Amino acid sequence: MAIVLGPNQFGKAEIRLVHVDRSGPVHHITDLNVSTALRGDFAAAHLTGDNAHILTTDAQKHTVYAFAREHGIGQIEDFGLRLGRHFVSSFPWIDGARVEVEQYNWDRIIVDGAPHDHAFSRAGGEKRTTVVTLAGDAAFVVSGIADLVVLKSTGSEFWGFPRDRYTTLAETTDRILATEVTARWRYAAAELDFGALFGEVREQLVSTFARVHSLALQQTLYQMGEAALTACPQVAEIRMSMPNKHHFLVDLSPFGLDNPDVVYQVPDRPYGRIEAAVLRDDAPDAGPSWLAVPGFC
Amino acid sequence: MAIVLGPNQFGKAEIRLVHVDRSGPVHHITDLNVSTALRGDFAAAHLTGDNAHILTTDAQKHTVYAFAREHGIGQIEDFGLRLGRHFVSSFPWIDGARVEVEQYNWDRIIVDGAPHDHAFSRAGGEKRTTVVTLAGDAAFVVSGIADLVVLKSTGSEFWGFPRDRYTTLAETTDRILATEVTARWRYAAAELDFGALFGEVREQLVSTFARVHSLALQQTLYQMGEAALTACPQVAEIRMSMPNKHHFLVDLSPFGLDNPDVVYQVPDRPYGRIEAAVLRDDAPDAGPSWLAVPGFC
Amino acid sequence: MAIVLGPNQFGKAEIRLVHVDRSGPVHHITDLNVSTALRGDFAAAHLTGDNAHILTTDAQKHTVYAFAREHGIGQIEDFGLRLGRHFVSSFPWIDGARVEVEQYNWDRIIVDGAPHDHAFSRAGGEKRTTVVTLAGDAAFVVSGIADLVVLKSTGSEFWGFPRDRYTTLAETTDRILATEVTARWRYAAAELDFGALFGEVREQLVSTFARVHSLALQQTLYQMGEAALTACPQVAEIRMSMPNKHHFLVDLSPFGLDNPDVVYQVPDRPYGRIEAAVLRDDAPDAGPSWLAVPGFC
Amino acid sequence: MAIVLGPNQFGKAEIRLVHVDRSGPVHHITDLNVSTALRGDFAAAHLTGDNAHILTTDAQKHTVYAFAREHGIGQIEDFGLRLGRHFVSSFPWIDGARVEVEQYNWDRIIVDGAPHDHAFSRAGGEKRTTVVTLAGDAAFVVSGIADLVVLKSTGSEFWGFPRDRYTTLAETTDRILATEVTARWRYAAAELDFGALFGEVREQLVSTFARVHSLALQQTLYQMGEAALTACPQVAEIRMSMPNKHHFLVDLSPFGLDNPDVVYQVPDRPYGRIEAAVLRDDAPDAGPSWLAVPGFC
Repeated sequence: MAIVLGPNQFGKAEIRLVHVDRSGPVHHITDLNVSTALRGDFAAAHLTGDNAHILTTDAQKHTVYAFAREHGIGQIEDFGLRLGRHFVSSFPWIDGARVEVEQYNWDRIIVDGAPHDHAFSRAGGEKRTTVVTLAGDAAFVVSGIADLVVLKSTGSEFWGFPRDRYTTLAETTDRILATEVTARWRYAAAELDFGALFGEVREQLVSTFARVHSLALQQTLYQMGEAALTACPQVAEIRMSMPNKHHFLVDLSPFGLDNPDVVYQVPDRPYGRIEAAVLRDDAPDAGPSWLAVPGFC
Repeated sequence: MAIVLGPNQFGKAEIRLVHVDRSGPVHHITDLNVSTALRGDFAAAHLTGDNAHILTTDAQKHTVYAFAREHGIGQIEDFGLRLGRHFVSSFPWIDGARVEVEQYNWDRIIVDGAPHDHAFSRAGGEKRTTVVTLAGDAAFVVSGIADLVVLKSTGSEFWGFPRDRYTTLAETTDRILATEVTARWRYAAAELDFGALFGEVREQLVSTFARVHSLALQQTLYQMGEAALTACPQVAEIRMSMPNKHHFLVDLSPFGLDNPDVVYQVPDRPYGRIEAAVLRDDAPDAGPSWLAVPGFC
Repeated sequence: MAIVLGPNQFGKAEIRLVHVDRSGPVHHITDLNVSTALRGDFAAAHLTGDNAHILTTDAQKHTVYAFAREHGIGQIEDFGLRLGRHFVSSFPWIDGARVEVEQYNWDRIIVDGAPHDHAFSRAGGEKRTTVVTLAGDAAFVVSGIADLVVLKSTGSEFWGFPRDRYTTLAETTDRILATEVTARWRYAAAELDFGALFGEVREQLVSTFARVHSLALQQTLYQMGEAALTACPQVAEIRMSMPNKHHFLVDLSPFGLDNPDVVYQVPDRPYGRIEAAVLRDDAPDAGPSWLAVPGFC
Repeated sequence: MAIVLGPNQFGKAEIRLVHVDRSGPVHHITDLNVSTALRGDFAAAHLTGDNAHILTTDAQKHTVYAFAREHGIGQIEDFGLRLGRHFVSSFPWIDGARVEVEQYNWDRIIVDGAPHDHAFSRAGGEKRTTVVTLAGDAAFVVSGIADLVVLKSTGSEFWGFPRDRYTTLAETTDRILATEVTARWRYAAAELDFGALFGEVREQLVSTFARVHSLALQQTLYQMGEAALTACPQVAEIRMSMPNKHHFLVDLSPFGLDNPDVVYQVPDRPYGRIEAAVLRDDAPDAGPSWLAVPGFC
């Protein structure tokens, strides 16, 4: 029996970066949070404190900034791939890299009915995300969306569930359904039109949420995933985590009032949590795609 | 010398409430965070634990829910006034009330090009706020906006400042200007078209931020306030807190790269903080309007 | 009627600073979050963008760091006073300053039964705070404690309250009482042994919370304040905000179980909020002490 | 090619629960955040909205509360195992369960030099955690600690790293080393004295952090893990995520001041992130231990 070093990685997390494209009078801004991690042979640093293999996290940060200047950003998946490929080709002992990017949305401010050239307001909490993984020459791309909060004020039922000793919940044929979608989907390839695909997946997720008459949040989730995969053959798999953000009808009868689905209280915790993957039965192997992805399933 | 009880208040904070208007096939939702506080003669509870004057915070919460059912919400200022007036008329020893409301925005989900009847997505972090204060029969209304993040990628200078021993900052004629606006404005009356006024003030704040060629964040703030007061005679005073959310150009010269205002790092802290009031010289007395308002100036 | 500039201030917020005292083999660390603000004649910056009076927030930040090096920190109140006096003496148009400091606690790590010379672990969320205000030559000191979470599992009653249409709460002679104390106390002078006084006030607040058999959270609050003022003649006034962090007994009867004050659910929101000042009837004038203090009462 | 349902689970997240042991005059409180998830055959709910297999998350919550009443809590690992075993034996289609528990620490308030019977103050941010996984009859226990913030003011070097185009970092033989430890360790069995083991692992982590003269944060991490495994034969593997919370010396030379390792600025982001597993080479198979564990490596 011996104690040994297992899997390990290190990098710089949460590099906040804004890129301004000033190539014309109409500016474009890209607002990112980038985290890098390197994989490879770093045993000596762990075992003896020998840093000869440790490409500093400070240098990783500089690389992110410098690449933004030299190559621009473009789609966050392409930016991540460019960085990841650089890292795995930088030193022989580095054979893997993981680049995670969050992108924040900004809208142009409207002045006198027209979008402004260089003034912006930050759009909602919704974020576009990606996790790009390099394993030697192989590249894996998982894109996603986070903090997308949606609600249906009707069109949601919940009944037919089994009842054990601890079940008191009443069945309902009309409830509020609200959730905060975290979705991550794995592409089958690494050279794709990521911007268009993101738009298509997002559109499918949101419109399917609206469209489905829901008998279970699981059903809604599955149909959202199925719609995304159906619309986008390039997507091999999608994983979703969808809390059931409960909205409880307030009992107003002690005050002589009815409450016909009008006034709801909204507790923060606890909440239901529904998580599932939807995938193609011929999806290519995921490899290290999901390694260290904040995880569900 | 004696030790005495000073000003005091108590209430229920952060009552999360969603109201659904189902009067037609197109639903309307109102999503609020309501906090109440009562003022009056509560000395006995403090001095001897005698609760005969303590209208429980539980009852205050119920009142909020019940009023939402009985009267609907409408504009948050009107909802606050309705609650406040109820509280000050409920028991003789209650002569003041403060109702604070935050409203979260939701957009309709677009399906097949049309806004959906009952499916919504949560809009950005921006919130509409109000603090309504009742002092006997007198009513005071302070409305506001919070978490409004805006950025200009050019059109901002900063130079001509004094230099002391600790000043090293370079002057600049082109920098990113970014801030997260918290604004609170006091109305000169309590019977107003609060929805239209909110829209007008918000429009003035945002478009002025975009329009002003800024020599100082103070100047931007002042012009934003001035525009709001000019457009809305019903607004007596506006107070704003605007952090200077620094965007620092990354020095890429060690890597042989220039950086002509393209790549910025964005630290979280520290940040500048600029706070000021803009008001009419004949503004009516503020009374207790600003009491217990999370405070600047 | 004219639109005019009202009260205003500007500064650098949340300067995170660690100071290490290495004067001997046993190191001492001081971990602070410092925010500065200047008051005075800054009209030109607001009205015309003329920055000739604007001592940059960058310089204010440098001053904080430099003073930490030149003079050390000592008690946070003294550090704030030193900075504030510097600012009001720096330029003729600056006649006021406000320095807010939060201090985080660290414990020494125990190794082989002895406190380590230079290894520390961060203590709880509880913070020591101060807000120092200079108005010309006059100095005002408000010290405080924040995020102090305390709970009594018995020794708390709540009954005898009035009942209106919206009151359904049952009276109780035994409940959990839990709160997160935010206390701010104003000293009658600016040259005091602030470290010892902080310790004494904290001790009075915490032990009184434990000791008092509570009939109302208002009563507990008042007695905590009274104990602090009684023990410390140098304290003129104390203001406290104490949420009632509800712990609700879970109804287990549907499962055939009793619940004799054993299992509680703990909602995040809403919560009661009890706020009051306790002061001496001969307390000196507060001046600008409470200006821009995140506010209750 | 077909689109299919992949791995999935559902449960109730963040059930906040306080248990009071009143069996004697000295009360004991246990403060938990519990999340449950069930695994098994839930395909029908996803594919057709048929909920016949969906043991409601509401019932799962009730089970947590009821078990706290019927069996008490004890060690959080034992509480999780009890719940998990119940769930997998509740219905034939449920063959897996995951119970995650966070425990918050409370200290007794000291009054007149003695610990109080029933008054407590919340201890630091540090939390004890567990993730218990049932897969049929097999049980897997991963325990952990989170939010443990530690700092060494000396005894840390960093040099000997490779230099690429983007490396500008200076080597140092004396720096502040600070981190926020998240550690999760997997036990080789499910019937253990979890309380004593937690104490021993925590002690090894903290004292090793203090003791090691660090040449790299990787080295510190590895030695912490090795110490825990050496002291506790029951621990098969430990995974740690340790951000390098940078403390940067402030350059005071523009102000004519030196800074001999005295005054540091502390940025929030970005930060280094070092993650590794340390394990026995004969560790038993991890099975589903790490599934859906917020993930590193």
